Parts: sequence; structure tokens; C-alpha cells
Amino acid sequence: MDDGIHRIKLHRFRNDKLSEQEDIVAVEEPLEIQVKVANENQPKSISVTMRTPGDDEELALGFLFTEGLISSYSAIKAVKYIGENIIRIIINEGVSLDIQTTERNFYTTSSCGVCGKASIEAIHTKSNFDCDSNHEIENEVLFSLKEKLAKQQSLFTQTGGIHAAAQFSYEGELLSLREDVGRHNALDKLIGNTFKKQSLPLGNAILMLSGRASFELVQKATMAGIRHIVSVGAPSSLAVQLARENGQSLIGFLKDKSYNVYS
Amino acid sequence: MDDGIHRIKLHRFRNDKLSEQEDIVAVEEPLEIQVKVANENQPKSISVTMRTPGDDEELALGFLFTEGLISSYSAIKAVKYIGENIIRIIINEGVSLDIQTTERNFYTTSSCGVCGKASIEAIHTKSNFDCDSNHEIENEVLFSLKEKLAKQQSLFTQTGGIHAAAQFSYEGELLSLREDVGRHNALDKLIGNTFKKQSLPLGNAILMLSGRASFELVQKATMAGIRHIVSVGAPSSLAVQLARENGQSLIGFLKDKSYNVYS
Repeated sequence: MDDGIHRIKLHRFRNDKLSEQEDIVAVEEPLEIQVKVANENQPKSISVTMRTPGDDEELALGFLFTEGLISSYSAIKAVKYIGENIIRIIINEGVSLDIQTTERNFYTTSSCGVCGKASIEAIHTKSNFDCDSNHEIENEVLFSLKEKLAKQQSLFTQTGGIHAAAQFSYEGELLSLREDVGRHNALDKLIGNTFKKQSLPLGNAILMLSGRASFELVQKATMAGIRHIVSVGAPSSLAVQLARENGQSLIGFLKDKSYNVYS
Repeated sequence: MDDGIHRIKLHRFRNDKLSEQEDIVAVEEPLEIQVKVANENQPKSISVTMRTPGDDEELALGFLFTEGLISSYSAIKAVKYIGENIIRIIINEGVSLDIQTTERNFYTTSSCGVCGKASIEAIHTKSNFDCDSNHEIENEVLFSLKEKLAKQQSLFTQTGGIHAAAQFSYEGELLSLREDVGRHNALDKLIGNTFKKQSLPLGNAILMLSGRASFELVQKATMAGIRHIVSVGAPSSLAVQLARENGQSLIGFLKDKSYNVYS
């Protein structure tokens, strides 16, 4: 993922003096995700997301899946790159697309208007998978995750500005890892990879998040059938509420010898 | 801002044992922003953002301004709350709205397609203010900002899950501070407050960000005419590029005795 970083010149103030140095920053570039039905002429622009280049196909597929636009990989006919920062997903004829849901606000569609409750109900309707957790994770495994993540998280270590989403087995083995300047993109890449391999749901795995756990991340995890979410940072109120209603386990503030169980 | 936190029960693992405790989490709830032209019947839903309740009017006004939908406070006729999580901005008759720009992806409108360059050009066209910085900030002032921010950042200290955007004078005096689960929302609230007071641009001030500096944050700062951006975390490649083209000063990784000057 070397294309995920840029080398730049900067001035560093340290030990009371300013000096010119070289350093690296995480690359952030827009990606336009387009969808086109095979027998139609016009593609539709679904989203522009600011992302770290790399794994763009996984990102686009993951986004379309976690936002509820496509539910099965068999709907995909082809994936085309239209230049560096535009990706087009070609959908098989006859597949119906609920384009309305794609404005990153499908929670508004529920009849009772905009509230956390409506958001949660909308997601329950959307996800095909049961996320109820019934497996206990060993403390020893939990406490090993952070170090394993840090060891593998190449871009973060180098730039300090990248989020990671990782999938671990119950035994603590790192199964996959994706990085991005956007937390939601890192998770979409991870889920998109599994979607492409047609091995969803991600039921028997632990999802590890390098930052905080927001509603959006728990929502995306729910779409992928993830039962165990572990985050290094704090969860939000609505993230806790959704995880509790799903029966998912949600752990926050994972440190070397302590953590909080929110759900 | 006590309505920004929820008290919940959780299990905390510490000193090798799990015990039930009470703690607080940052509230995250959706806010739908609607716009209605005074003499038209139907409001338009512009965005649903996941935000921490509080300062919703500032958030909505700041969002509409930084996304380029409205450019002057004189365009606003009224602000109405439609229930807890829907806010409607009534625009004076005869004000033309560029609704297309509001899908959080106005960078796509530029003719050369989607790339970082197009994004930056689009923003240059959009902003009415010159952001070229010509004022030097004292090191002593810089190093005092983090502590001042932390002292005032009530929700963060309590929940560990909140971002802040703050405005400081060149002398290091805290002028305003807004907090939110979303970084972009905290900044929209801060800018919305100034927009409402009709005191934009924010030219003679330092913008302090509690987290990383993404393209989106530098873009919003540019719309508000902010010349100095200081962040506790890392900037992204496109954030650095935009700040350099604007002539803004952009400082990252502000610590107790060191910082990086990216632009």
C-alpha cells in the first residue's frame, strides 16, 4: 500500500528550533462511485467519498453492500475504472436497485421520521443477518489484538493519520486488515473484500476498530453480520443502543489490561 | 451541553475482574437539515448528519454555508424545529439555491472529473474570502492552545469520544468552542455561530482542531476565510495541498514542545 502515502517537505519545530525535513502524509483523494445497469445507457453517480487510494473495488462493493443498495455478489456484472478516481460498478440486467437508499441517509426512510429509534429500525429491516453473539472471547485473546493490529498497520505507524478495520478469528489470528483516512472506508474495504469472496456473513470473527465506534460503523458491521466489535476508542450512545438491540458484543477503550463492555 | 451525554450501565474489566459500573457516552443522533423557500410549499431534505445534539441551528446554518448553498445571512427568513431531530431553514423568496452542491460532493462539478486538483479548484471558486496568512503566531501562544482547549472541552474529558473545533485569538485567547461526535459538525457549529452573528470571515483567528486535519475540514475553514489551522493530529495529503494553494498556515501534531508546519 505504498501508494497510500505521499512524501512531502515540512518544517518541524523541535528542541526549540525549526528545521526543514521530509515526512510522509496519508493520501486522501476523492473516489466517485458510479452504478450502471448493464442494458441502460447512463451510469448514476452514487457517492463521492474522500479515501486513501488502494482497494478501490473493495471499497465500492463494500459501500454498495453496507448501504443496502446491492445484497448479493451475483448482481455484479463487471467493475470498471474510469480514470484514477472514478469506479463504475456494472449491475446485471433485471436487478432492481433502491437508489434512494444510497444518499448515506437511509435512516430517514422509516415512517416515524428522523430519530435514533427510526435509524435502528431501518437497519434491522435492511440486514439479512443475525448478529446475536453467543461466543465468549478469551481475555488473553482480547488483550493481544491491539498489539497485533499495530504491528500490521503500516500506514498508521508511518503517518499517524490512518484508521484501520481488522478481522480477527476467535483465537486472535489476524484474518484481514484494511486502512483508510476515513473510518467508514476502512470498514467498507474490509467488508467489500469478504463480499467479493462471497463469504458473508462475518459471523465467526472479531471486528477490531482502531478508533471510536460510531453508529455508522456498527450499522455497517450489522449489515455484514458481525457479532463482536472491539474498538480502541469510545462508542457513541447510538452505537451502544444498536449493538444492544442486535445482541452484538461491543467493547470499547481496549487497553493493555482493561476494557469496557458496552453490550 | 449536558444533553450531549448519556449515562449508561456497562461492565468494566480492570485489575483482572469485571464489574458493573455507570459511565457516560457521547450522544449521537441524526439531524435532518431541510431547506424551504418561503413562497414554496415543499421543503427539501438536504442532509442527514449524525451529530451530538446541541447548537443544531448553528450546525445547520454552518453546514449550508460551508457547503456553498447560502452565502449570506440575509438569505435566511426563519429557522424552525420540526420535532427533535429535524431542523428547517426558511429562505427568503427570490434567493436562488444551488441544491446540486449540497450532496457533500460539490467537488465533482468541476469539468476535469474527479481528482484532488478538481476538488481544490472547485473550492477556490466557491470561497469568497482570501485565506492567505501573513501573521506570525508566537510559539508561546501555540504551545498554550492544547491545554486551554482540554480545559474547556467538557464533553471530551467526560466521554473520550468527542471532537472539538475552537477559535483562538492571535494572543491565545479562546473565543469560541464547539464539540460534536463528528469533526465536520464541530467545525460547522463553530462557523455557523459566526455566520449567524454576521461576523465572517474568521480572518484574524486561529482554528484549533482536536483531531486530524482532513481535506473536508480545510475546505470548510477556507469557506470561512480562516488563515491559520492548528491540529493535534496528522493532516492528509489533500489537506496539505489545499492549505498550500490557499496560502493558509497548517500546523499538525501539536505537542507540548513540538509541532510540524505543513504549509
